[in-house]
Amino acid sequence: MTLIEQPGTLPDRDAEARVRADDRAHVFHSWSAQALIDPLPVAGGDGATFWDYAGNSYLDFSSQLVNLNLGHQHPDLVRAIQEQAGRLATIQPSMANDVRGDLARRIAEVAGDGFEKVFFTNGGADANENAVRMARLVTGRRKVLSMYRSYHGNTSTAITLTGDPRRWQNEPADGSVAHFFGPYPYRSAFHSSSQEQETQRALEHLEQTIVLEGASTIAAIIIETVVGTNGVLVPPPGYLAGVRELCDRFGIVYIADEVMVGFGRIGEWFAFQAFDVTPDLITFAKGVNSGYVPLGGVVISERIASHFDTLTFPGGLTYSGHPLACAAGVATFEVFERDGILERVRDLGTRVVEPRLREMAERHPSIGDVRGRGLFWAIELVKDRGTREQLVPFNASGKDAAPMAEIAAACKAEGVWPFTHFNRMHVAPPLVIAEDELVRGLNVIDRALTSADRHVR
Amino acid sequence: MTLIEQPGTLPDRDAEARVRADDRAHVFHSWSAQALIDPLPVAGGDGATFWDYAGNSYLDFSSQLVNLNLGHQHPDLVRAIQEQAGRLATIQPSMANDVRGDLARRIAEVAGDGFEKVFFTNGGADANENAVRMARLVTGRRKVLSMYRSYHGNTSTAITLTGDPRRWQNEPADGSVAHFFGPYPYRSAFHSSSQEQETQRALEHLEQTIVLEGASTIAAIIIETVVGTNGVLVPPPGYLAGVRELCDRFGIVYIADEVMVGFGRIGEWFAFQAFDVTPDLITFAKGVNSGYVPLGGVVISERIASHFDTLTFPGGLTYSGHPLACAAGVATFEVFERDGILERVRDLGTRVVEPRLREMAERHPSIGDVRGRGLFWAIELVKDRGTREQLVPFNASGKDAAPMAEIAAACKAEGVWPFTHFNRMHVAPPLVIAEDELVRGLNVIDRALTSADRHVR
Repeated sequence: MTLIEQPGTLPDRDAEARVRADDRAHVFHSWSAQALIDPLPVAGGDGATFWDYAGNSYLDFSSQLVNLNLGHQHPDLVRAIQEQAGRLATIQPSMANDVRGDLARRIAEVAGDGFEKVFFTNGGADANENAVRMARLVTGRRKVLSMYRSYHGNTSTAITLTGDPRRWQNEPADGSVAHFFGPYPYRSAFHSSSQEQETQRALEHLEQTIVLEGASTIAAIIIETVVGTNGVLVPPPGYLAGVRELCDRFGIVYIADEVMVGFGRIGEWFAFQAFDVTPDLITFAKGVNSGYVPLGGVVISERIASHFDTLTFPGGLTYSGHPLACAAGVATFEVFERDGILERVRDLGTRVVEPRLREMAERHPSIGDVRGRGLFWAIELVKDRGTREQLVPFNASGKDAAPMAEIAAACKAEGVWPFTHFNRMHVAPPLVIAEDELVRGLNVIDRALTSADRHVR
Repeated sequence: MTLIEQPGTLPDRDAEARVRADDRAHVFHSWSAQALIDPLPVAGGDGATFWDYAGNSYLDFSSQLVNLNLGHQHPDLVRAIQEQAGRLATIQPSMANDVRGDLARRIAEVAGDGFEKVFFTNGGADANENAVRMARLVTGRRKVLSMYRSYHGNTSTAITLTGDPRRWQNEPADGSVAHFFGPYPYRSAFHSSSQEQETQRALEHLEQTIVLEGASTIAAIIIETVVGTNGVLVPPPGYLAGVRELCDRFGIVYIADEVMVGFGRIGEWFAFQAFDVTPDLITFAKGVNSGYVPLGGVVISERIASHFDTLTFPGGLTYSGHPLACAAGVATFEVFERDGILERVRDLGTRVVEPRLREMAERHPSIGDVRGRGLFWAIELVKDRGTREQLVPFNASGKDAAPMAEIAAACKAEGVWPFTHFNRMHVAPPLVIAEDELVRGLNVIDRALTSADRHVR
């Protein structure tokens, strides 16, 4: 048995046809109209690259769904899974298990002072569901505040927390959620003209929302530390500290959704660590083991965990703390520490990505804003830099979205798999991407944006 | 590298102490008061047996959480995971993937005529959430009916559907759920005196519930085909066909929750196949790959799938159709077919388990009822066969539950890990359990019930 297959891009049209036929006939895809999609049959991957059956390979600038932090087929993760499969593939949550405890300890350690325990789930959605459950039970309150322009998962409470169009068709689901506006300096909801003003006004808005929703009814505020799919919105200085202060003042639990940004995406174990703030609950998934085995969870502050020392926590799931998933998580910690992944991300972000994007912004009239941190950036595209009119409208589809589809197609034609959302292109490659690959991908995006420039008025 | 470790039961007190210390300090456990539990550190498993670090091994009569259908460390599943990890551990849901399509095709095939597509999830809860989502969108209605004495998962809609005490602290969550009474001949809610009467009256009750809740408001009825944790309640003849007829008459989607009973538990691919009925949506998890990698999903009838051919399905998740999980699912199909697992389950159920339990029921005055099918049975324990007073009260805990705790302890002392719930002991071993192991386990349960007999009035 070959433990890790070697990369190869020889065309195999028979296999491609077989994979496509099974897929089209039998696989029902996420977030799609099933007859209007043509999923790419993928044959393999290695590091920051994956390839199809037709001989094409792609530099993955989206890390799949911003989960593949250590890239495809990382030998340490593959080996950890293979070894754990041979030792003990699964054991129920009510037992104690070596890798489950090992991973929980490592996560609690890097989360920092005050965090001791981890509740494992299958992914980010049920992590958020369980964090909200804890907050509701600890406070005896029901309502949760979350941001417009956010994504928190697809189960009922998680999709209700979500502040993007994926929520709309699923309402009403959880009846105890209200949305507020977060900071977004480039498109301020508060008519701000500086980062400082945006912070101040966004906090005033949040405080007013708390007061008008009824502070005594609010269990939790949940925030993506850096808003992910909805725009790589990095919180301006002081914002998260202000949220923390409001939560303390009103007895509200602060939940940091770190599903997308945790585990190195911006060069920190958890993104909140870059913003001088400590939440009460941290939710994670994706990067914890690069999605090699489904895994998510909640890191629980001592104050909240101790509430359930003698009171039963009324939540659980069959695969909580799954050994195979946890083994891949332990290997992730070993790789991060041995290979200095966090330092690498900060270095590539500040030395390679940021200067290049800022330089591109000067040349491309279609670029309205670039923002980000580490290996997580957004290029926001506009028709007009003065009015900031979006290159395509909010939630555009079909013909309205064509300008973005053109850019994506141009990237793919040059072997880069991009992440686009609304009027933005994100830069979110695996954290192990080689520097020359990163530069090559940015060159491709740079060229692709010439098509966006044609739409500028 | 040893691909599969050999079983061994040599005590290793250092390892045990280390595993316990990490667990107690850092792992937050499902459905528990954290300071009141003492999770068993498990060192390994093989087939129907697992062992701790102290030299004790246990015959697993609960298949972990009734998910380990092919037992611990099945060599075919372990090999499939190891090989897939080496080929391609993960790929995002929007791509086509060989094992994802292969498993979807196999599942659709065994589900039978009219089922073509599978939407994969991480487990049973999100399978039920997404089935309900489909039903709501297809019907344009919101309300869902589910049974008292049921379990459907832990996320907001799934836990609201649940009809047991695990729901109570989580309400209100999904505001559009109503509960009805299902058939339970031994404790009929309808004062029936025969199976036929129970079917007829339970269907009358369901029809009245539909009418009074408003047929035009009801999107779906969800039913565990054989109610699992809440009692191994096998539907009496004609009941599910009656549900089907009511659903057809009122335009309601029939969702069969087969998370626990699918994939062989009662000797069928899907349990509904034993009851001459076809649902519109089937949810599954657990047995699909014995929980070796988290996996669940919805099998979708053509009528419902086609609704989403041109309309976007507004649900999805990062790990939908996870290759590692699907590879273990494909291996499960190969083992089931090669080793005749379904036939084996039916044979062991009718030839070994049922006669033995019926014989035990004659000898033990504490046994009020035995019921089940295949390798899924309940022994319902009573203080008094005449009044049918339960051995312990509904939802008993602490001292009230002591008689059941005694029985469980007696089983463990003889090396059998039992499944107990309220006043019942379930028999749910791995489907690959050797016949002599099965007999040995039943002998242990038989002896343990002498302690229950002491509580009989």
